[in-house]
Amino acid sequence: PDTAAHAAAVAREPTLTKPAGSLGRLEPVAAWLAAWQGRHPARVERVRCVVFAGNHGVAGRGVSAFPPEVTVQMVANFEAGGAAINQLCRAHGADLQVVPLALDRPTVPFDTDAAMTEAEVVAALNAGLTLDLSDTDLLIVGEMGIGNTTAAAALALALFGGTAGDWVGRGTGLDDAGLARKRSVVEAAHRHHGFTLSDPLEALRRVGGRELAAMAGGVLAARHARVPVLLDGFICCASAAVWQAMTPGGLDHALAGHVSQEPGHRRLLAAMHKDPLLDLGMRLGEGSGAAVALGVVRDAAACHAGMATFADAGVSGAGDGTRDAAS
Amino acid sequence: PDTAAHAAAVAREPTLTKPAGSLGRLEPVAAWLAAWQGRHPARVERVRCVVFAGNHGVAGRGVSAFPPEVTVQMVANFEAGGAAINQLCRAHGADLQVVPLALDRPTVPFDTDAAMTEAEVVAALNAGLTLDLSDTDLLIVGEMGIGNTTAAAALALALFGGTAGDWVGRGTGLDDAGLARKRSVVEAAHRHHGFTLSDPLEALRRVGGRELAAMAGGVLAARHARVPVLLDGFICCASAAVWQAMTPGGLDHALAGHVSQEPGHRRLLAAMHKDPLLDLGMRLGEGSGAAVALGVVRDAAACHAGMATFADAGVSGAGDGTRDAAS
Repeated sequence: PDTAAHAAAVAREPTLTKPAGSLGRLEPVAAWLAAWQGRHPARVERVRCVVFAGNHGVAGRGVSAFPPEVTVQMVANFEAGGAAINQLCRAHGADLQVVPLALDRPTVPFDTDAAMTEAEVVAALNAGLTLDLSDTDLLIVGEMGIGNTTAAAALALALFGGTAGDWVGRGTGLDDAGLARKRSVVEAAHRHHGFTLSDPLEALRRVGGRELAAMAGGVLAARHARVPVLLDGFICCASAAVWQAMTPGGLDHALAGHVSQEPGHRRLLAAMHKDPLLDLGMRLGEGSGAAVALGVVRDAAACHAGMATFADAGVSGAGDGTRDAAS
Repeated sequence: PDTAAHAAAVAREPTLTKPAGSLGRLEPVAAWLAAWQGRHPARVERVRCVVFAGNHGVAGRGVSAFPPEVTVQMVANFEAGGAAINQLCRAHGADLQVVPLALDRPTVPFDTDAAMTEAEVVAALNAGLTLDLSDTDLLIVGEMGIGNTTAAAALALALFGGTAGDWVGRGTGLDDAGLARKRSVVEAAHRHHGFTLSDPLEALRRVGGRELAAMAGGVLAARHARVPVLLDGFICCASAAVWQAMTPGGLDHALAGHVSQEPGHRRLLAAMHKDPLLDLGMRLGEGSGAAVALGVVRDAAACHAGMATFADAGVSGAGDGTRDAAS
């Protein structure tokens, strides 16, 4: 982080025409933006939202309420402008980019084998690592992939421990039988892969998926490009958590946009020491929760950069009121 | 509410290309907008934010961290574009209107007398009732007035009972001695006015203030003009609650934008059966919390109106995934 830009934000905040602290979380968000953009005041004009799509062998295990062909159908929907993320990016003036990753080659079902070869996981990571982040003030990475909450649950279990039941949820709307199958798949995967999952990148390869690896790549690329990241839901956070598991502070340039209704997400954010901006019961993926949170981040930057100071506006400060009255 | 518009929203929601319920609170917000605009799909383009300002005799009792002249100074700051609400309205493309209410005549200190005469409270109510709400899709009412969390606490106590301590908080940043004075002023007011405060409008006159009455007037005008309202913080909600206290359902056209850090606000929202969209630790007033929440409301409308349906996009529905796998 840029300590000078951060210090400039912290110094400016109490001069603005409002009671100290009265913008709540918007105040540290403005300072965080400055620190990770390396610029004070920060700006949040050019926002890039990249949705990666991948297919999952485990989808064939009955772990999703939707059939696997929905991944490619939704990519067409993104391209036609019909999905939720299209409306949200339009509403917020964010650029949306959709990156399908070898949709005709689903990953291998990871309960019995590694989801990806080393070449495959590297290619997927590179899809994120090579994102064009020039002229970008903020990055959102999102995903589409039938079966990918199962991969995220397996990855979260690898990174943070616990039991499969801690991380498995209903995803797009599984019934009880589907939920039990999903838990079994995650348990089988952990039995099969064993201690190899203690290496975060190896866990990403073995039980992750292409869009998970690509999101992780994008989050890392943003760090190097001085682009703060707004994290989306359970799958996005599980992917990004790979860097935190490898390096303490490795995700300090990323803010949790929201907490999803997918129950593992709240647990995951707690494990990641991330406090989400929004809690709206969303569970859609696509970057949608982060896109809604973008409004809050933009508001934080707008207030910090645009407000008048007490001195400039000729507004009296705190203290005079009670001092007069108490005397 | 318009039941046909509401029903049309409820019917459209499950046809949209996303798992049922996956947009969380955005889904009922879209239906609520349709019901109270009487239009499906709802739109949130022309948003009006009106900030009423008033001065309070009780400010002389040492109940605020800021001196009373800050009210008029902040009105000048609003007019010059330097306050938080200016930046937020600009960021969201909302029209901001500032309405100072007899700032040279503070209300009477309400611990020993009624804050306003009947003529004064009617004039203040009318400032809101006569707002021009033509071409308005959504209304935000906000306030500025040194001392007005004391009035809001006294009003909330009148409307919902409890003790003064339940409703009194630090406002703009009171110290412990100031907080004790503030509690004493509210207790003294309730001893002085007694059972007359059981009439909500009479309570508004006796322990409220001009900007509180004007916000209440604006909220009522919006109901008649088919304009949904996004409520701001403690003072805004205490004012609006007058209608709910008079008529069950009298605030169904209003949504709680956020919950403030002012502790009485959380209690007040619970008493009003309102679930806030945001919880960001804000406590600034001016309509600022509602203005941040406007982003979420707009996102809800944009997704509902703009998303493709499963049929139009050729996307398979839920159920096929697990049915195939379980067979």
